[in-house]
Amino acid sequence: MSKNPTIADVAREAGVSTATVSRTLNDPDRVKEPTRVAVQDAVNKLGYTPHFGGRILASNRTNTVGAVIPTMENAVFAHGLQTLQASLADMGITLLVATSSYDREHEEHQIRTLLARGVDGLALIGAERSAEIYALLDRREVPYVLMWTGGKADGHFTVGFDNDAAARQVVDKVVAAGHTKIAMIAGTTEGNDRAAERVAGVRAALAERGLPAPTIVEVPYQIEEGERAAAAFLSAAERPTVLICGNDVLAAGALRAARTHGVNVPDQISIVGFDDIDLARVVEPPLTTVRVPHRRMGTSAAQHLVEWMRTGVKPASILYRTDFIERASLGRPPK
Amino acid sequence: MSKNPTIADVAREAGVSTATVSRTLNDPDRVKEPTRVAVQDAVNKLGYTPHFGGRILASNRTNTVGAVIPTMENAVFAHGLQTLQASLADMGITLLVATSSYDREHEEHQIRTLLARGVDGLALIGAERSAEIYALLDRREVPYVLMWTGGKADGHFTVGFDNDAAARQVVDKVVAAGHTKIAMIAGTTEGNDRAAERVAGVRAALAERGLPAPTIVEVPYQIEEGERAAAAFLSAAERPTVLICGNDVLAAGALRAARTHGVNVPDQISIVGFDDIDLARVVEPPLTTVRVPHRRMGTSAAQHLVEWMRTGVKPASILYRTDFIERASLGRPPK
Repeated sequence: MSKNPTIADVAREAGVSTATVSRTLNDPDRVKEPTRVAVQDAVNKLGYTPHFGGRILASNRTNTVGAVIPTMENAVFAHGLQTLQASLADMGITLLVATSSYDREHEEHQIRTLLARGVDGLALIGAERSAEIYALLDRREVPYVLMWTGGKADGHFTVGFDNDAAARQVVDKVVAAGHTKIAMIAGTTEGNDRAAERVAGVRAALAERGLPAPTIVEVPYQIEEGERAAAAFLSAAERPTVLICGNDVLAAGALRAARTHGVNVPDQISIVGFDDIDLARVVEPPLTTVRVPHRRMGTSAAQHLVEWMRTGVKPASILYRTDFIERASLGRPPK
Repeated sequence: MSKNPTIADVAREAGVSTATVSRTLNDPDRVKEPTRVAVQDAVNKLGYTPHFGGRILASNRTNTVGAVIPTMENAVFAHGLQTLQASLADMGITLLVATSSYDREHEEHQIRTLLARGVDGLALIGAERSAEIYALLDRREVPYVLMWTGGKADGHFTVGFDNDAAARQVVDKVVAAGHTKIAMIAGTTEGNDRAAERVAGVRAALAERGLPAPTIVEVPYQIEEGERAAAAFLSAAERPTVLICGNDVLAAGALRAARTHGVNVPDQISIVGFDDIDLARVVEPPLTTVRVPHRRMGTSAAQHLVEWMRTGVKPASILYRTDFIERASLGRPPK
């Protein structure tokens, strides 16, 4: 049996009788406005969907999957979402996407909203959210996949990659190129476990080598923010020889700062990105970055999430390898 | 009264009695599987939501708005969607976004899906879709806004700009710079009225000046496609002196083609984009382009759509001016 809320749950939540709930749902005009509001609020809050049976049956599927992503504003999630959507569409399922602006409470509200709209499954980004929301998903027996993350999310079905390991790989390459004065322009780590793991990976890899702790600034994932942060490093008394950026958007901003400061990349400073979005290949010089398997993540998340929705059996998590892509923005440190 | 489907409509669609529909919805275990499937299919098809009353009442709002956009793959819709979402969120409304991959049938299926999920309103891109779908929206009395378009969508509530006029403005500037050998790398016009209007505007503006009809190729809005199309023009016997691109993504691809062919922009060929997305400012040289008021479009679409949802009165359409942004990618034609 699924743990969908019952009419009794709605009655309790609204503080009315089940008969009143039933009357409100089936013949609202016979119910006073305040009661109607109370019942409707309870229905929305609990995600009660009376026209779907109690059991998970083919006949009560809505053939919709919900996704909550932090933002549509930069292209980080674009390709992964596109293939997730396309793969689901091939299976006759519509993907409905909400955005949380990297706000955890906002994300949880949207998860509840999607459940109230009767989605059959959910795709979420990262693993960091309240125990309450995971308890709700379990109670409602709604299959969900956590994307863009992996390894560190015990017990959840994840399709992604290890952000920490990828960041360590960046440090390996940067150090191998001869850099020791390393700074990082990270994405805001608050409410973003992927950004936090990238910072942790950089810190740990440097510490293990006995190299000095890097200067790390955190900024929102926006070109202007990367540009401003890079400008500060460029005009610092002790200029770093390489800027490790939390993603390609920040790195593109750093490239602009270097251009406006007349600082040659990579001769005078190296810049490394993360994600390998289209932007990385169109900027000049092209960005050395970490390739994330966006499209494969989207396709396999769709396939296995639907497998879970249809069989009721939680699939095994999938951890993809990331690749370090060497382009012109990383060179040896200046003499 | 709203024209939401009634239990009688569902019964008719499913070919069963209203009593059977009621029993299926309230106590599915008492109904045989085939009947349950038939009723559920009818419910989904008609978007019947029994737990919401017949009238548009505060108490039966779902506080969700649906949007169907062509793609999340490029950043064209990113900022407009983000401000639409943020403005709706400020009003306590969640935006659920589906993508159609520029496929009209797919878009209409998703509009029906969003209606079945009980959205209070819809945001759609462009005006080109079947009369049936507009009839459905009117019948269901669901407020909707058409974005990224304007002027040419009689009777609809649009918040956007005139793609045709903006394209004419591009021709004005390009001709004023001395160009006569003009080619266009347009987005695929099939199922995309915005792309079609940009092509029409370029054709008309050149014809009015008695200038030769431009060579126009249509490609999907992808960097690689813009690069491939530009490469063909660059190696043509009679090379154009300017490439007018359907959007900044195609123009960024054209810049890459010029770089790989060792053709200097703008000394040997000029390139103009459209949209003024972030990409336009990070490529080298920065793109001369048409600035579309993405953020204002999103904010005012949200405000007026909600006004319609709450008052039942369709707002007046809003037509924004576009601005021609001169950057380094447009110069005078080579001697």
